[in-house]
Amino acid sequence: MKKLINDPRDVLRESVEGFALAHSSIVEAHWDPTFISQRRPLPHSTVALVSGGGSGHEPLHGGFVGDGMLAAAVPGAMFTSPTPDQIDAAFHHADVGGGVVAIVKNYTGDVMNFEMAVELAQADGIDVRTVLVNDDVAVEDSTWTAGRRGVAGTVLVEKIAGAAAARGDDLETVVRIAEHVNANVRSMGVALSACTVPHAGVPSFDLGDDEIELGIGIHGEPGRRREKLSEADTITATLLEAITDDLALASGEQVLLFVNGMGGTPTSELYIVYRAAAELLSRAGVVVSRSLVGNYVTSLDMQGVSLSVLRLDDDMTSLWDAPVHTAALRW
Amino acid sequence: MKKLINDPRDVLRESVEGFALAHSSIVEAHWDPTFISQRRPLPHSTVALVSGGGSGHEPLHGGFVGDGMLAAAVPGAMFTSPTPDQIDAAFHHADVGGGVVAIVKNYTGDVMNFEMAVELAQADGIDVRTVLVNDDVAVEDSTWTAGRRGVAGTVLVEKIAGAAAARGDDLETVVRIAEHVNANVRSMGVALSACTVPHAGVPSFDLGDDEIELGIGIHGEPGRRREKLSEADTITATLLEAITDDLALASGEQVLLFVNGMGGTPTSELYIVYRAAAELLSRAGVVVSRSLVGNYVTSLDMQGVSLSVLRLDDDMTSLWDAPVHTAALRW
Repeated sequence: MKKLINDPRDVLRESVEGFALAHSSIVEAHWDPTFISQRRPLPHSTVALVSGGGSGHEPLHGGFVGDGMLAAAVPGAMFTSPTPDQIDAAFHHADVGGGVVAIVKNYTGDVMNFEMAVELAQADGIDVRTVLVNDDVAVEDSTWTAGRRGVAGTVLVEKIAGAAAARGDDLETVVRIAEHVNANVRSMGVALSACTVPHAGVPSFDLGDDEIELGIGIHGEPGRRREKLSEADTITATLLEAITDDLALASGEQVLLFVNGMGGTPTSELYIVYRAAAELLSRAGVVVSRSLVGNYVTSLDMQGVSLSVLRLDDDMTSLWDAPVHTAALRW
Repeated sequence: MKKLINDPRDVLRESVEGFALAHSSIVEAHWDPTFISQRRPLPHSTVALVSGGGSGHEPLHGGFVGDGMLAAAVPGAMFTSPTPDQIDAAFHHADVGGGVVAIVKNYTGDVMNFEMAVELAQADGIDVRTVLVNDDVAVEDSTWTAGRRGVAGTVLVEKIAGAAAARGDDLETVVRIAEHVNANVRSMGVALSACTVPHAGVPSFDLGDDEIELGIGIHGEPGRRREKLSEADTITATLLEAITDDLALASGEQVLLFVNGMGGTPTSELYIVYRAAAELLSRAGVVVSRSLVGNYVTSLDMQGVSLSVLRLDDDMTSLWDAPVHTAALRW
């Protein structure tokens, strides 16, 4: 294993410290228990968005803390759910009287620990609602999940619901909008290589020199099938077909097309995949009116991409366009 | 070689097409010869910044085309200088009567081809000035360069000079500011792995399982020395010491600290390096008042980072803070 780290046990603390130092005008780090919050307090009675999950997917979620997106993020250990006390502390810190929306990726550990934290916070009188994200069309159940997994679509849920909270929508409305985004986004990924978790020290799985894993999960868990590496256009068509079939996307509809890098993929390859997907959508009469390309939900150093398509309506589009000021997404 | 590409000969065209599609509100692609320009024309008689170089370093330079930064970017083939006719076409397109500043990384091929393009454009009455970037302290001469190489500091030159052009500074002033940034920025990188150029199909060099290359160039060319992999804090201290010694940085000075990922490095590791560098600078009494962390000048899928330190003054700081609207840098 070759990594730019010190003691593997210090990876989380040191990377969160570095993150908080580098973006000290936007975020602050809290310890015992660990969470990241927006530095500038939200206006009183605004709805606060809180998300979290295992580390190793950076910039998710800490990189999305800031004006117009998350009020707080809770990083667990590498690929491990944060603990209920961490999440509860973030809920308490984030709430400014408008209630809290917890955005939870559908993994069994996350769901369980967020549920316990919600109970703790509610016992203290904080109104917390949970929105589960489950955008991955690849598999129905997997090693880590009952039901569909939550993957890159989470970024779109957090951005759009965050903009709704920032414009002053109430708790019920922000929940409804977050669920509406989740209902209209589908994703699927492919891995060309495994990733290496620092404390494990070896790749999370083995792929042959000419093999890819279609429908890979963000922890390297198995997807739909392994096959021989083929051309980018072929792979992209496979991912996109699974997504658009599931979305029942029709000609004339507007979408946001999101090509997400898994961490180790050159930018030029992300754009080759974007080109193939955009052309296929265009040929089907679908209008790509918004786009996002980059490393947003990663799996450490994994080589691969995920494709996400979000069916847009006017409100979602204007919430997507609304200003955002976070470390990883800013306009 | 495992890559998300189609025919290796189509990588450049297809990735530029995808890039232009994904960011069609900001840029447009031109073909025969190939260059990328800002979609929105500059106000008449504004100074236009043009940069370029071999592909494989994305988002450099196309990702920095847009309001407040570059008017055009010229991508050569992978790790290969763009041709004079490409560069000349970009000069002609970009010029709106205020003259052109060409930002050139100091590599022999780039310098030669930009020189020929400048002659062609000047023969047509376009006032083009060249600013050479040579921020790499690692080596004095190398396989690809006479003198110091131009590396990640180029992003800082392009951002700050671009902001000067956008506020209406004239040609001489923009050149002076770009040279002032170059004179005050130093960089040095380290590689944990080589990168694989698509048409080559094999890694650009061999590194042992426990080896790193200190002072690596952005094409994988040799640096200062190979050594055993050590802790991130130790490696960071080595890079930073070479930089701050060369800059003759003194206690009380303000700097911008830039940790650049080479393409295949997890985000968490970039922040571990940032943390180590920020702490060392702080201990030396240097004030880190601005920061940048991410994959901005990459070497395809190489694992590694570069560190850059820019000595700031008030004008550079306010130009750094000025709005920018490009695919890769936006605030």
